[in-house]
Amino acid sequence: MGKGTRAERELANMLWESGFAVMRSPASGAGRKHPQPDILISNGDRAYGIDTKSSSEDLVYISKKEVANLEEFCEKFGCEPMLGVRFDWEGWVFFKPENCETTENSYKVSRDKVGLVLEEGVGFRKQETL
Amino acid sequence: MGKGTRAERELANMLWESGFAVMRSPASGAGRKHPQPDILISNGDRAYGIDTKSSSEDLVYISKKEVANLEEFCEKFGCEPMLGVRFDWEGWVFFKPENCETTENSYKVSRDKVGLVLEEGVGFRKQETL
Repeated sequence: MGKGTRAERELANMLWESGFAVMRSPASGAGRKHPQPDILISNGDRAYGIDTKSSSEDLVYISKKEVANLEEFCEKFGCEPMLGVRFDWEGWVFFKPENCETTENSYKVSRDKVGLVLEEGVGFRKQETL
Repeated sequence: MGKGTRAERELANMLWESGFAVMRSPASGAGRKHPQPDILISNGDRAYGIDTKSSSEDLVYISKKEVANLEEFCEKFGCEPMLGVRFDWEGWVFFKPENCETTENSYKVSRDKVGLVLEEGVGFRKQETL
């Protein structure tokens, strides 16, 4: 089991404990004709399609093509797109694409950007900073 | 690729063409801590969690345990549970668990039972019989 898979399994459990039913996508999207997010969650009130990244760097780039696929899926499904990023030595932080900086080809998330975090039994809340 | 996988991929494409965004689950549920359906779909209006079976027999049995897991997921997610069955030489037919006969341990679907079928661009409609 790769590091990304382990991290994503950990995330799935955190989401479930935060009140969401969680649907995980197969690791490989090979041969897939239609987009689907890495994780799809709903608590009956809010639903989110989430693409996930883990990184040992301080910056994560997510291609605009990937985000466009995520947004296509979410529009058809009726859920909100979200990017979930896990930096080493830090937990998962979540960002709406529209709140991210972009480069020519990518959405960009840096370690010091303030996002949303999960709270057990509550769901997403804004990250606190020192 | 097994017959079940092929049939399920065919189903995923049919669902997409019928107006649903489709999320497929990994083939194996090994090591999974929480239930998730084989397929989860929504068109922004109706959402369904679907467990699927293919059979060369005239009768399909789905364990009450599996249906209970499906219902647990769907209640938390906020979608409707559905059973999707594909008999040989026939397309996919769909049933709400509450409309199925049960045995001591299983839900039972027979080939001659009238269910729901997919119509392109429309979604589910009641199966027509001769």
